[in-house]
Amino acid sequence: MKKQDKTMDYTVKDVEFMRQAMNLAARGKGGVNPNPLVGAIIVKNDQIVAQGWHKHYGESHAEVNAFKDADENNIDVKGATMYVTLEPCSHYGKTPPCAVAIIERKISRVVIGQMDPNPIVGGRGIAMLKDAGIEVVCGVLEDELKYQNRIFLNYVQHKTPWVIMKTASTLDGKISTYSGDSRWVTDEPARKYVHELRNELQAIMVGVDTVIYDNPELTCRIDCEGRRNPIRIVVDSTCRIPLDSKILDTSEARTIIATTNKANQENIELLKQKGVEVILTKHSDGKVSLGDLMQRLGYLGIDGVLLEGGGTLNFSALEEGVVDEVMSFVAPKIIGGNGSMTSVAGKGINLMKDAINLSEIKVETIGNDILIRGLIIK
Amino acid sequence: MKKQDKTMDYTVKDVEFMRQAMNLAARGKGGVNPNPLVGAIIVKNDQIVAQGWHKHYGESHAEVNAFKDADENNIDVKGATMYVTLEPCSHYGKTPPCAVAIIERKISRVVIGQMDPNPIVGGRGIAMLKDAGIEVVCGVLEDELKYQNRIFLNYVQHKTPWVIMKTASTLDGKISTYSGDSRWVTDEPARKYVHELRNELQAIMVGVDTVIYDNPELTCRIDCEGRRNPIRIVVDSTCRIPLDSKILDTSEARTIIATTNKANQENIELLKQKGVEVILTKHSDGKVSLGDLMQRLGYLGIDGVLLEGGGTLNFSALEEGVVDEVMSFVAPKIIGGNGSMTSVAGKGINLMKDAINLSEIKVETIGNDILIRGLIIK
Repeated sequence: MKKQDKTMDYTVKDVEFMRQAMNLAARGKGGVNPNPLVGAIIVKNDQIVAQGWHKHYGESHAEVNAFKDADENNIDVKGATMYVTLEPCSHYGKTPPCAVAIIERKISRVVIGQMDPNPIVGGRGIAMLKDAGIEVVCGVLEDELKYQNRIFLNYVQHKTPWVIMKTASTLDGKISTYSGDSRWVTDEPARKYVHELRNELQAIMVGVDTVIYDNPELTCRIDCEGRRNPIRIVVDSTCRIPLDSKILDTSEARTIIATTNKANQENIELLKQKGVEVILTKHSDGKVSLGDLMQRLGYLGIDGVLLEGGGTLNFSALEEGVVDEVMSFVAPKIIGGNGSMTSVAGKGINLMKDAINLSEIKVETIGNDILIRGLIIK
Repeated sequence: MKKQDKTMDYTVKDVEFMRQAMNLAARGKGGVNPNPLVGAIIVKNDQIVAQGWHKHYGESHAEVNAFKDADENNIDVKGATMYVTLEPCSHYGKTPPCAVAIIERKISRVVIGQMDPNPIVGGRGIAMLKDAGIEVVCGVLEDELKYQNRIFLNYVQHKTPWVIMKTASTLDGKISTYSGDSRWVTDEPARKYVHELRNELQAIMVGVDTVIYDNPELTCRIDCEGRRNPIRIVVDSTCRIPLDSKILDTSEARTIIATTNKANQENIELLKQKGVEVILTKHSDGKVSLGDLMQRLGYLGIDGVLLEGGGTLNFSALEEGVVDEVMSFVAPKIIGGNGSMTSVAGKGINLMKDAINLSEIKVETIGNDILIRGLIIK
């Protein structure tokens, strides 16, 4: 990012309005991937007169939607300030450049959250606005906006999905009792939060053992605008998945089986007949290479994966370095048990000093439960 | 508590001064058991002119120490306000009643945190002050002060120790790796916090397996005023403890072995020769009854126990209902491992719905680690 294009010439009110634009941007969750979340508001005399956000991939940008909102309410936006979470675009793509629209509408000041992360076009929108005599401020709430758009930012850079490992355990670290009971570890608000994540991330990934044991549907069971189901990915190195598993019903949502060429070819054909997509990955010792799988999911345009795996898959994913973020719900209850399951199993790490560390830890309470979030230090 | 003796006629400043008195009270940690922590400050013209706290069991009360402080600085406290975290005493015990001293010193207003919990004497100190024409306010910061004095309050009521189960685990719930390595789960600030707890609680309790495996000293390794070592209690149903264990060196701290009459009598005699105290408890299936042990520790005047047991002892303690509070440190790191140890093991609970629940959850960060505290719902 070009530092010289950033200014710090903004007020507390600018921060407040940017936060409202950020909240608007969040409404695009689940609809815009692999595009970024963007929100825009137009302010005249310290009052919000119009607002818009990017709603669906390929459709109009936040700025254009804000202008539409103004037009529908017969608001003249000349001389107004626009707050937009991401630098307005300067290129003719699926839509005309937003920077041009802003200039044509005679907006006099533009407050931007973060610059376009594309090193080739980043800063061009700002330059166009400045050249037209518009006052531009950039970098307001930048860190929070980077977190909001981390899935997009990662995909632009790496072309692989951002992987969030989500776990839900008791205070003593258990995800199920010794008898296998796991209903429920967390309360309703935390479970609703997870369904919102399923709506936000393009795909959800589990191990085949979870399918065999729990027979889940892994659909998004919340009622919200633009709700859609995540693509369901099952890691199943030898294609052991029972053919009557609920997850193989592809009428409601796509299903991908990640397997290897060690799997039974007949099983693969039967899965394909059910409309299931099958990805053959590289492997070592006959086990799906999760690194290779992420590359392939990236090719398919999948920018985010919610990993809700059992402990074995979770450990493999961490070991292979494909996990970017951890969201760990902790319920204020204890069940004990030598034979109870924990969220990350597998062989494990030998020495505590070699543990996988997290940074940028955030702790919040969701209902009665505690959510600990952090980024994996790679 | 007699509700009519409480008034709510106090200001924000009163709350601020009471918080300072509460902070003073905390300085008595480790010294006053099984007495309560008490702090007192004297305020004239909105300025603190003198302060005192209860420092050691059997020595002068907080109010008396505050008057001493005033005398040493030639401060006339006539007409001043006194803030004291606990109702001034009204009985002639080891010291003359503080209520009488307050009246003699011509204090004009007394702000009290909480009433004396003893149902026989509670309210008498307040009545004496009021009868002498002093304005009395009671109940300022009462909930926080009750938490600060929970060890005392529990002991007054039940004559058994308040038991805090302290655990330190990774984000995935492990206390050691599959190879047994546990150095260190948490960072320096969290470990220092635990040593402060060891200074605050009269006793620390572990299972014999922890002694065999780690050979700990379980002394308090912080440098603070009034530092003292906790009494070390080892639960060892059959007296398996190796005679060369560091914890059996009683030159620095007392050691109690809790065992049963199933233990080898010769071993018991050898332990006694080393200056170790041996408690024979009731038992079922040859296992120490922790409920009975707590009764016996209570008889010895032990009002608080920090349970740092391995997973087996922790589960037994929870199962027998002797744990009052949990302090769970969570480090932002992951180690995985099917064979890694967790903080609460044993047989465990069969169904998630029957989990042991915690209430009054508090979450705070200690350095890089997260501390989740809560009270066991009984």
